[in-house]
Amino acid sequence: MPLMSNSERDKLESTLRRRFFYTPSFEIYGGVSGLFDLGPPGCQLQNNLIRLWREHFIMEENMLQVDGPMLTPYDVLKTSGHVDKFTDWMCRNPKTGEYYRADHLIEQTLKKRLLDKDVNPQDMKNMEKILTTIDGFSGPELNLVMQEYNINDPVTNDVLDALTSFNLMFETKIGASGQLKAFLRPETAQGQFLNFNKLLEINQGKIPFASASIGKSFRNEISPRSGLLRVREFLMAEIEHFVDPLNKSHAKFNEVLNEEIPLLSRRLQESGEVQLPVKMTIGEAVNSGMVENETLGYFMARVHQFLLNIGINKDKFRFRQHLKNEMAHYATDCWDGEILTSYGWIECVGCADRAAFDLTVHSKKTGRSLTVKQKLDTPKERTEWVVEVNKKFFGSKFKQKAKLIESVLSKFSQDELIRRHEELEKNGEFTCQVNGQIVKLDSSLVTIKMKTTLQHIREYIPNVIEPSFGLGRIIYCIFDHCFQVRVDSESRGFFSFPLQIAPIKVFVTTISNNDGFPAILKRISQALRKREIYFKIDDSNTSIGKKYARNDELGTPFGITIDFETIKDQTVTLRERNSMRQVRGTITDVISTIDKMLHNPDESDWDKSTFGLSPVKI
Amino acid sequence: MPLMSNSERDKLESTLRRRFFYTPSFEIYGGVSGLFDLGPPGCQLQNNLIRLWREHFIMEENMLQVDGPMLTPYDVLKTSGHVDKFTDWMCRNPKTGEYYRADHLIEQTLKKRLLDKDVNPQDMKNMEKILTTIDGFSGPELNLVMQEYNINDPVTNDVLDALTSFNLMFETKIGASGQLKAFLRPETAQGQFLNFNKLLEINQGKIPFASASIGKSFRNEISPRSGLLRVREFLMAEIEHFVDPLNKSHAKFNEVLNEEIPLLSRRLQESGEVQLPVKMTIGEAVNSGMVENETLGYFMARVHQFLLNIGINKDKFRFRQHLKNEMAHYATDCWDGEILTSYGWIECVGCADRAAFDLTVHSKKTGRSLTVKQKLDTPKERTEWVVEVNKKFFGSKFKQKAKLIESVLSKFSQDELIRRHEELEKNGEFTCQVNGQIVKLDSSLVTIKMKTTLQHIREYIPNVIEPSFGLGRIIYCIFDHCFQVRVDSESRGFFSFPLQIAPIKVFVTTISNNDGFPAILKRISQALRKREIYFKIDDSNTSIGKKYARNDELGTPFGITIDFETIKDQTVTLRERNSMRQVRGTITDVISTIDKMLHNPDESDWDKSTFGLSPVKI
Repeated sequence: MPLMSNSERDKLESTLRRRFFYTPSFEIYGGVSGLFDLGPPGCQLQNNLIRLWREHFIMEENMLQVDGPMLTPYDVLKTSGHVDKFTDWMCRNPKTGEYYRADHLIEQTLKKRLLDKDVNPQDMKNMEKILTTIDGFSGPELNLVMQEYNINDPVTNDVLDALTSFNLMFETKIGASGQLKAFLRPETAQGQFLNFNKLLEINQGKIPFASASIGKSFRNEISPRSGLLRVREFLMAEIEHFVDPLNKSHAKFNEVLNEEIPLLSRRLQESGEVQLPVKMTIGEAVNSGMVENETLGYFMARVHQFLLNIGINKDKFRFRQHLKNEMAHYATDCWDGEILTSYGWIECVGCADRAAFDLTVHSKKTGRSLTVKQKLDTPKERTEWVVEVNKKFFGSKFKQKAKLIESVLSKFSQDELIRRHEELEKNGEFTCQVNGQIVKLDSSLVTIKMKTTLQHIREYIPNVIEPSFGLGRIIYCIFDHCFQVRVDSESRGFFSFPLQIAPIKVFVTTISNNDGFPAILKRISQALRKREIYFKIDDSNTSIGKKYARNDELGTPFGITIDFETIKDQTVTLRERNSMRQVRGTITDVISTIDKMLHNPDESDWDKSTFGLSPVKI
Repeated sequence: MPLMSNSERDKLESTLRRRFFYTPSFEIYGGVSGLFDLGPPGCQLQNNLIRLWREHFIMEENMLQVDGPMLTPYDVLKTSGHVDKFTDWMCRNPKTGEYYRADHLIEQTLKKRLLDKDVNPQDMKNMEKILTTIDGFSGPELNLVMQEYNINDPVTNDVLDALTSFNLMFETKIGASGQLKAFLRPETAQGQFLNFNKLLEINQGKIPFASASIGKSFRNEISPRSGLLRVREFLMAEIEHFVDPLNKSHAKFNEVLNEEIPLLSRRLQESGEVQLPVKMTIGEAVNSGMVENETLGYFMARVHQFLLNIGINKDKFRFRQHLKNEMAHYATDCWDGEILTSYGWIECVGCADRAAFDLTVHSKKTGRSLTVKQKLDTPKERTEWVVEVNKKFFGSKFKQKAKLIESVLSKFSQDELIRRHEELEKNGEFTCQVNGQIVKLDSSLVTIKMKTTLQHIREYIPNVIEPSFGLGRIIYCIFDHCFQVRVDSESRGFFSFPLQIAPIKVFVTTISNNDGFPAILKRISQALRKREIYFKIDDSNTSIGKKYARNDELGTPFGITIDFETIKDQTVTLRERNSMRQVRGTITDVISTIDKMLHNPDESDWDKSTFGLSPVKI
């Protein structure tokens, strides 16, 4: 599949703007980079995408949807790691005041230098290595590259300031006193983690299950470019699938076993060879250990199915595995669903096994248990170090502080208990810190020993498999993949959106003006509305050819044209967008043909569905 | 219609929380007041509400939907008036640091004092007057009331600080430099106004038309209480209907003419008598001039229809007209759709004629014309004052400044021109300011005179009729109006949601365990999924009575029960939530009966639809 040429991309983007699929926000005020409005066809497409996403994921898997606020208090995002780590490295031109995102600047500069004829093979290899692994670079690593390659301002060639780290969250304050610091959420996931106990409860304590959220998130990009692909406010859809860490199989894995997916594994990327993904069934990929577990594999397959359904070209999609340095320390595996556009490969879906990280940190911070309690069919013996206090002396010695000290002791890990046990054996006492004070404990007060108990309940923190979608980016990729230019003298552009995605399903028009037409238009409108088919009437005074072209530009798959014969015999023509073929039939037959194609994916084939109607020669 | 008792309200709210319709956000972190999460049934209900809203308004009227960002730059909201006027008055207890919203504090205090037995009739009258008109009070007016009535901290009785004004917008900064000040939008309307030219263009330059937005908006409430009714982040749906200021008729007004609506007019409120709304058809209301114009009346009728469709009790709804002091200075008429709940009358929908205010201010600020250009069938003569410059002398005298001066002159209003004309006549010259400098112009350089021209185009700024919905509040009102308690020994609560609003449409369950049941469950699931009917399987080990009660609490209208007969003859029982009646039929008949009731509002009647099925005695 060839990429779009620059002139095609210009044509695409001018079509998108002219037909108001989208526009820069606040344009009459000069605009704000990274913020866009969707106009009517863009909104309708987005609505369709959300509905399909909800059907494909939420309905199909009985996921538990949650809708929480974007305003998020500081503490939550401090715990989740975003306050410290949701950052990019940037550098500033001290003369112009312009800011650059360091990794993007390096990429842009090195890609340009690679095109240089004089570049020597070793340099070339080094630069290519940097380009493939830059996503995992730390700030100091980026700084080193900036210095080593003498990277200056790409416009003015000024020397740039040293890198600084920039937190990408928008900050605000809640309440009249202004003392509650908050951020706009960078993702929808945290709201799901925090509700884990409630979700588990309404799922009757059973695991696995998944929650899902659809909503806007925010990222204060340093200098956003590339249109809809890098924005400061974007629509996400995220799934948090909670599983038993000891059993990551998936009940429906056998349904997707044979789904063939292009996989660019970590090994392949690190090999430094030509980086073409390998087509492999998800069954093989999980079996060979390339994909860590069945649940992760199941979702990768379902994501793949979803993207192809909504208009993504199967030859312009791959799953790329995160490199070790790119992956969060707690994650066990992570694959990015990437889509190839004229801007290159765009990360649109992340599928990660986040292990128990999120629930663990929130539980630790809040002191609230976020666990699953599984009743064991056969109780299990468990032998472990325990600490026991001698109630008699302990209470009278420490008085009101006794409880607090006990609680500190009860939180010792096994390792800590072993160490204390050794101390007790050796010195007859050990010390511990309670609220900053040193407390001495001797063997008259405490005993530390191995104890075997019978466990009837297994209590564990579940692991999380997270498929996370950037719906806004996916919308742009649909535009990119569905835009086509007719091979004729007019070179008109059109969108070959799948039926379910197309903003408007049918346009209805008349060949010219006639007193008999309005009544027919009304009849057709009522019939379409009754079948919940979204349509538009094009009653402008334009040639029929222009009307077709105009509706093709909106990606409207079907056109019904009323002409003079319609008055006589109630027949109309039905036109298909991609092939421009036309058939003729009665109003009733034509509408029920459209209905069938729209509402039954198995019957969306034009030739089969219009078999009973008469072909029209154009 | 009686209001909910306190114990019923407690029962309602505990049901809503227990079944996770909603929960305070970030609860394990202690929560943040005014922020809530919707759980699975709440989300599903919200999804249904959005879909119905879109069908009833956007689809039915071919409105142009726009989806813009919440981040909004300072300039836009400065121009719209929000920076200066989107404020509440608050007062602080200097000892505790607690903040109170002044109008709420006054209301709460005076309502309590009215209950005092010793209150004298004149005081009572005064306090009642304050309570009915407080929505329009300015800061100084509120301050006066606070002093006159000695209103102190309601908890500690401390004397409070003087009132201060507090802007209710959340503030943040966009970009790495932190220099672009922005707010989270307080409404979705501005994004629609700013896109007016694009919307007009895709509507082929024709007017009237409407745009619409659905999305979150923000309001940094001073001290939010009353649960879901006063929140800091909320879902809105707003329509901006653009009309010709000289013609506010509506093409479909005759379709709603006879819609009867309870109207509480300004006159009635100001009369000081018992304030019961008057039931009146919208036709009469517009005809009598009580409602300012047809378009405003049309939307009020459509809003009324919508609210009754989605479960609002018709006897707990009214439209209340804004008092003069309550209405923005530019608005010509404004009615609040208010819903009566156990918290009193809640404003849920505002319908306002905002005249040309918004487009005018944005146009002035940006210098971009936001007008409709109407081609006149018969050109019109227009006589007005004009200024003409003598090119010959003007250019050579002012050189590169000539253009700027001309542009200043061209912006003079008719009044300003008349004044300059008089000066010229009297003194032979006049002065004007250009970029802060005084420029002298005499009659050799400019002429000011009356001139008659032929206008082929009428150019005007359209007026805006704005129906604005607080969807979150409407959701709470649906809960309040649909919650019922069975009159039996168990006093179980349930939600009588309309079919279209109910989160889950059908629950499917088995009478007990049997090897034959799973296959039947699967068959029923597939059939329901194919018809796009949202269902849940309840396969818990509970008594059938408990299962019914549990699904009634979710407002699920239909229940299908599989029992031992099903294995023999493929019949199941179908149960209706409100009446608890049951009928029996084959799986196929039962499912198609449900389908008919759900997808065809005319066939939602239980008795008629289940006519062919056998009644079951319970």
